[in-house]
Amino acid sequence: MINIAVLGYGTVGSGVVEVIEKNKEVIDRRAGEALYVKYILDLRDFPGDAYEDRIVHDFRIILNDPEVSIICETMGGLEPALTFSMQALKAGKSVCTSNKELVASHGAELIATARQNRCNYLFEASVGGGIPVIRPLNVALTAERIELIDGILNGTTNYILTKMAQEGTDFEVCLKEAQEKGYAERNPEADVEGYDACRKIAILASLMTGKTVRYEEIYTEGITKVTKEDFLYAKKMGLFIKLLASVRYEAGAYYAMVAPFLVGEDNPLHSVNDVFNAIFIRGNTLGDSMYYGRGAGKLPTASAVVSDVIDCAKHGRKHIICLWEKEKQPLSDIGGACRRFFVRAKEGSEEEVRRLFGRMARVDAGVPGEFGFLTEPMTEREFGEKAEALEGFVGRLRVDA
Amino acid sequence: MINIAVLGYGTVGSGVVEVIEKNKEVIDRRAGEALYVKYILDLRDFPGDAYEDRIVHDFRIILNDPEVSIICETMGGLEPALTFSMQALKAGKSVCTSNKELVASHGAELIATARQNRCNYLFEASVGGGIPVIRPLNVALTAERIELIDGILNGTTNYILTKMAQEGTDFEVCLKEAQEKGYAERNPEADVEGYDACRKIAILASLMTGKTVRYEEIYTEGITKVTKEDFLYAKKMGLFIKLLASVRYEAGAYYAMVAPFLVGEDNPLHSVNDVFNAIFIRGNTLGDSMYYGRGAGKLPTASAVVSDVIDCAKHGRKHIICLWEKEKQPLSDIGGACRRFFVRAKEGSEEEVRRLFGRMARVDAGVPGEFGFLTEPMTEREFGEKAEALEGFVGRLRVDA
Repeated sequence: MINIAVLGYGTVGSGVVEVIEKNKEVIDRRAGEALYVKYILDLRDFPGDAYEDRIVHDFRIILNDPEVSIICETMGGLEPALTFSMQALKAGKSVCTSNKELVASHGAELIATARQNRCNYLFEASVGGGIPVIRPLNVALTAERIELIDGILNGTTNYILTKMAQEGTDFEVCLKEAQEKGYAERNPEADVEGYDACRKIAILASLMTGKTVRYEEIYTEGITKVTKEDFLYAKKMGLFIKLLASVRYEAGAYYAMVAPFLVGEDNPLHSVNDVFNAIFIRGNTLGDSMYYGRGAGKLPTASAVVSDVIDCAKHGRKHIICLWEKEKQPLSDIGGACRRFFVRAKEGSEEEVRRLFGRMARVDAGVPGEFGFLTEPMTEREFGEKAEALEGFVGRLRVDA
Repeated sequence: MINIAVLGYGTVGSGVVEVIEKNKEVIDRRAGEALYVKYILDLRDFPGDAYEDRIVHDFRIILNDPEVSIICETMGGLEPALTFSMQALKAGKSVCTSNKELVASHGAELIATARQNRCNYLFEASVGGGIPVIRPLNVALTAERIELIDGILNGTTNYILTKMAQEGTDFEVCLKEAQEKGYAERNPEADVEGYDACRKIAILASLMTGKTVRYEEIYTEGITKVTKEDFLYAKKMGLFIKLLASVRYEAGAYYAMVAPFLVGEDNPLHSVNDVFNAIFIRGNTLGDSMYYGRGAGKLPTASAVVSDVIDCAKHGRKHIICLWEKEKQPLSDIGGACRRFFVRAKEGSEEEVRRLFGRMARVDAGVPGEFGFLTEPMTEREFGEKAEALEGFVGRLRVDA
């Protein structure tokens, strides 16, 4: 029997307990031994809960119990999750987590500690919820040089953008609807400003480069400035607006960013709707691949945590190689990244547009007093200068094509 | 250094050698040791080839060389691949294969032999080419009861169906085009009759059930009878025609089949076009997920073989658990499977249709002398009886919705 402890009896933590109970037969068969939830750490008591007797309030009880070999850290936040995780790993207990914030900021350190203590720090649930994406990167796409990762990594913003596209309503209206349905939090900043997606792409970028990509250095733009007019133009051009979290390798440099993009029908991410997430990966021999599924939610996320627990159980005190060093991976300034842009400009500024951007095909989407156009590929820097010089400038979106 | 041998220097075999050379730095780092291709077994000689000196014609040279620990079987076909693989495993050499025919017919036996001899038999490349799908099923979705797998598993037929949809042309025309582009073989039977997809879904179904699903028992219908008129109706209804290979668990029974299906926009498989493959998996706690990419081709398939080689290298003489027993998994007769059908019927048979199928909404797609309609959900058996009784019956497609 393998004894495990769950830190934090919130949404994901209670989901972990539920999945282990619900799929006991198949899980125990795959782990090679029966899993038993011996402790659940939480500040609260849960009178009447089926696991009431497993609740403890002091982490030291778990840490000092030699029978506990695997810990699920589903608390979230930096502290005390970091301290508990480090202590557990140093005691040779493997840790499986859904905590993207902690993984993004201390991943390399925690993995190194696991390696030194012959146990594992696994974090499949930290990106893409139930979608297996960490494991494919670590154990399946191992023969690849990854050239590009584009992800729809935040369900809340994808839900809002899907509604805006379908209903032609404004951001604020759709945000309110998402909040009412429980898809967005009362304070939606972490989602709508792109901070959540930023942490997740930092994790994927670190696995792609093998070094630490610091999330603080990733250019991040949320969806709060996307308007219903933008969707009118997108529709007119047969394009879709998605919040992409992206990292790419181009001519010796790594670029990473989070921003709303116009994507075309040939991009498989275009049809990823509602709260679904997807990760598009391009390898140098594999070509294009994509992983799609529920990026959040109690049971999908818990299922990913439990798959890590099973992996730990199968490996015992053998460390699973994960190439993510503490050394910082420098990112190039996105000013040098090259792409097309879609621009909205005031009626009457066509001549100015032609002077600055050259030939252009006008896009009319029925928005009074303005028109749109697509630029040729150019660097962010070059575009920024031209856009600033354009007096009739109304707005812009990046184009992923 | 880890010495490997490649059996068969054809498309995939030469791709394996190419990938190992091209991505040497990243592969060696991930394998933990340098990989070295010591032998290539082929009946032919390859004068002038960079690997000319590694070519051998006698498998015993490889078998008897204690330095060789991993073998890539990229010969295809049942024999001598089966004999060579068994001999290798019994000698404690791990085998990585792209041979779907061999895996589908002898998978359980080969895995058991690997287990007994503390080595591995891995077959990521046998389904979905470069798409990681075997590994997700084995090591990522381990906390799940898989309820359903729907796959677009054959690139040739998906290419033909995509062209038929886009160009409104007949099967024969598109097949010829696919042959000219090298996407279909001179003798296209294995692809267009669904036999290739059938073997692949048998492998996935075996991993889903943990027992052996025999491909001979899977109901298989190809795309040769799909017509351009079918696409007119599909378009009219906003649906798409895809060759689905499917296995599902329903009320204690497993159903498996390969057949063309009408799928809707809410099914993420609808937008998988050209030679791309995708696998849709529904788990009881994970919900829906999908894996998309290049299902065939030299380098993507080779990349999957090499990812298995890396896995073998990392595990040494440790067997990686794979739950696939020799015991046969019975499949239920698809007569009991329940779904909707789309029917084409001769003009004038509406009353007969109403008598047999109840209320119906007529679909007109401009095909002279006929109309179409969607049935309510019913079993295959019930539908078969009604369709046979319908004098005005022209054709039918199954609906996946």
